[in-house]
Amino acid sequence: MTEYVLRPVGRVESELTDRAAAPRQPDEGAPDAWLVFDDRYLPALDGLTPGGDVLLLTWLDRADRDTLAVRPRGDAARPVTGVFATRAPDRPNPIGLHVVHVLAVAGPRVHVRNLEALDGTPVLDVKPLLTADR
Amino acid sequence: MTEYVLRPVGRVESELTDRAAAPRQPDEGAPDAWLVFDDRYLPALDGLTPGGDVLLLTWLDRADRDTLAVRPRGDAARPVTGVFATRAPDRPNPIGLHVVHVLAVAGPRVHVRNLEALDGTPVLDVKPLLTADR
Repeated sequence: MTEYVLRPVGRVESELTDRAAAPRQPDEGAPDAWLVFDDRYLPALDGLTPGGDVLLLTWLDRADRDTLAVRPRGDAARPVTGVFATRAPDRPNPIGLHVVHVLAVAGPRVHVRNLEALDGTPVLDVKPLLTADR
Repeated sequence: MTEYVLRPVGRVESELTDRAAAPRQPDEGAPDAWLVFDDRYLPALDGLTPGGDVLLLTWLDRADRDTLAVRPRGDAARPVTGVFATRAPDRPNPIGLHVVHVLAVAGPRVHVRNLEALDGTPVLDVKPLLTADR
């Protein structure tokens, strides 16, 4: 099948650097972090304001793309499950989805609350949460 | 910045073929559709069962990736807004997010309800909706 090229629009700046120690979900102790966008994408940030929740898409660049089945959360007591039935990061196209609260927007830098992505993780996209007015 | 290669895992089979006529959201008349996975990804589907809602990620291959700001929904009365503050399909990395109800799973074919993606749209990933048990 045709392949497509992702162009990261920015990177995560975070104190999280070790995948093994990283929280699996934002409510498991993820720190606040910065999204640092490339200046060329500044026009795409126009309208993003502090105080709301947004959907952040990242590329989990340290994931294993050849994994097709896992034991969820690495728990040996749980049955092997296809990755499309889990949220495991290891999967053919390791796109991370994060609902984050926007604390501040300062030019190309966006401060967000409780992000479980590692430092340096490429940012792909930001979208509003789906509401009636989109 | 480093670029990354997406490897589509399947395609949408749908009666929708015309972007201009396609609904913008699933509750605006989107038809049921099939997700047809490449056979090599069958192990990744293990555990996906009919009757639940899942999150489908697609690649909106007919989107314009150079668009950074739009008038939401093409409405001339609305102000120009950065694409990261809208759900417009035209954006640097046009990843489609769809919450779909799984009607049936038949080998590498998955039947889903109300999908607003066009016929032939590449499928990137399927994830459970986030719940306490993942």
